[in-house]
Amino acid sequence: MSLHAVILAGGAGERFWPASRARRPKPFLRVVGGRTLLDATCLRARRIAGASRVWVVCGREHAQAIRRATGLPASRVLVEPARRNTAMAIAFAALRIARADPQAVLAVLPADHHIPDTAAFAADLRAAARAARAAGALVTLGVRPTRPETGYGYIDVGAPVGRAHPRLHRVRRFVEKPERRVAERYLRGGRHLWNAGIFVFSARAILEEIEAHTPELAAALGPLRARARSSRAELARSYRRAPSLPIDVAVMERSQRVWTLPVRWRWSDVGTWESLAGELGVAPGRSRLLAGDLVYDDGAGNLVWGPDGKAVALLGVSGLAVVDAGDALLVARLDRSNEVRAIVQGLKEKGRLDVT
Amino acid sequence: MSLHAVILAGGAGERFWPASRARRPKPFLRVVGGRTLLDATCLRARRIAGASRVWVVCGREHAQAIRRATGLPASRVLVEPARRNTAMAIAFAALRIARADPQAVLAVLPADHHIPDTAAFAADLRAAARAARAAGALVTLGVRPTRPETGYGYIDVGAPVGRAHPRLHRVRRFVEKPERRVAERYLRGGRHLWNAGIFVFSARAILEEIEAHTPELAAALGPLRARARSSRAELARSYRRAPSLPIDVAVMERSQRVWTLPVRWRWSDVGTWESLAGELGVAPGRSRLLAGDLVYDDGAGNLVWGPDGKAVALLGVSGLAVVDAGDALLVARLDRSNEVRAIVQGLKEKGRLDVT
Repeated sequence: MSLHAVILAGGAGERFWPASRARRPKPFLRVVGGRTLLDATCLRARRIAGASRVWVVCGREHAQAIRRATGLPASRVLVEPARRNTAMAIAFAALRIARADPQAVLAVLPADHHIPDTAAFAADLRAAARAARAAGALVTLGVRPTRPETGYGYIDVGAPVGRAHPRLHRVRRFVEKPERRVAERYLRGGRHLWNAGIFVFSARAILEEIEAHTPELAAALGPLRARARSSRAELARSYRRAPSLPIDVAVMERSQRVWTLPVRWRWSDVGTWESLAGELGVAPGRSRLLAGDLVYDDGAGNLVWGPDGKAVALLGVSGLAVVDAGDALLVARLDRSNEVRAIVQGLKEKGRLDVT
Repeated sequence: MSLHAVILAGGAGERFWPASRARRPKPFLRVVGGRTLLDATCLRARRIAGASRVWVVCGREHAQAIRRATGLPASRVLVEPARRNTAMAIAFAALRIARADPQAVLAVLPADHHIPDTAAFAADLRAAARAARAAGALVTLGVRPTRPETGYGYIDVGAPVGRAHPRLHRVRRFVEKPERRVAERYLRGGRHLWNAGIFVFSARAILEEIEAHTPELAAALGPLRARARSSRAELARSYRRAPSLPIDVAVMERSQRVWTLPVRWRWSDVGTWESLAGELGVAPGRSRLLAGDLVYDDGAGNLVWGPDGKAVALLGVSGLAVVDAGDALLVARLDRSNEVRAIVQGLKEKGRLDVT
């Protein structure tokens, strides 16, 4: 029962506009520590699964760039016929990988997270894989909250599962995007963890649970299952009819086999310019330059991203994201950077594909 | 005694960085109404003096661009051997023009001011020219203050000069850059006017007064006066030894022949991004786009200048100048834009001639 790493590279990362674009989504951005988020995820994946068991799931529009960036063979870059959220992406990958290795255990890793401590990460992933192997559990990793975040899902952690898996717990329930007050209570209470979107389960177990709880997803993958292999067009048609559901909703909140592993390492989904600023230690007295050439900044507390060699001067401003992507420029208050997506969506509605 | 217009195009306009550069100084910027400040000044100059009596004084580095932009013949683009402030530039021009027209009356116009009402401007310049012709007066135009500006010189307006020149007044004294409180008193009092840096006098009168009050300037121009014409190198040497003085200090504050003509038209020296914003009507609820493509601005009260077609989005910010000049970007609070010069000077000290 070998451990395979499945990197989900389907997200758009619109909130990183204008650095992220339809053709250069968030995993391709060099935002922390000199390498792209995708590169860093691949490194972690190889660490836990070995180079020959790393897979990526992505859309057609990014497949070539991902093959180039990761050096993965085409057979391990799984191209979805359409984008249908994480449940479908995981089901698709599980079916494809199970065909090559029916005993496969999968570690599902979003391509655009930041986890500085690779060693601690790898050790926990192996512990989760043991539970997935031995008990058929669907393991979700839980991160201790550091702020009353209202944009995440929370795990209400239950009793320990027992001596055989000392750090694993049952899940009482999942809570998706709580209100601010509730999130504050969770933060104080200590019993709730952030659902980090990192999962470990056997291919067999997740396919069984998808079949049990969201049979329409399993049905949509029928053409892939058929003994006499169906055409690509047939799969694409049935894929597009499938519901677009996150794996949390499709399976995790419904299954009785879900366990959680509380982890202690630092994690960030690098969701907005603000969370990136937090990750990089931007503070009222401290600005950070991600790219470009910050020639003057008397304000501090700003996050700056500019084209190579571009001279950027900030005078009297603080707490801003200043992002110059060459053909588009964003100047935004960091604490409102979750609204960046609205700018992108507005541009798309106006047909401005040149700058989205 | 024909009226000649002398456009002073020697200033750098560092406070308009990064739009203004050593090689593209402020007069070349298209900041108000679609034409450059220099073009607009030339239009006014032609209106009062006729196309064949318009002159420009500038440094060697801009001479070619000015000839191209204005269409003036090389003989009327007077290239100073060095930059020595307005007194020397005016003395230089007066000597050169007097050689062609000994009876010349000069209207001295800075190349980078904004005066929307050309007709009213022209009428007042003609009234000033009459006084300069008939009485040998050095006339300075006085603008009614609209704010307690501490960066300007003020004219303490004295008694009317008499019936022959009904709108002209004597000058009690000049006050250079008063303290805030003093400027506020002037604003309330109504007796003080801004010295706009626009002067009208005969070439003969200004040369006499320079000789009388700042003989070292007159001496520095000796090589230009000599009957047997001296070499260009000799003039350059003596020019560089001349003191760098504004005409206000060198002559106006000392001469007994100075009159002022209070004017009623709108005037702006477009000194900073903030004053430009004021001129353009930027207000808390209203942003202005000077160039580029402002795709989103929920804050308003911002002034935006970007390269053609560049998409600029502002989120949650107000009262900012956002100026993208391609290779350099400024994000500054408008109310601190008089500090922009410090950025430029810092860059120059670091040898960053590429972006200054």
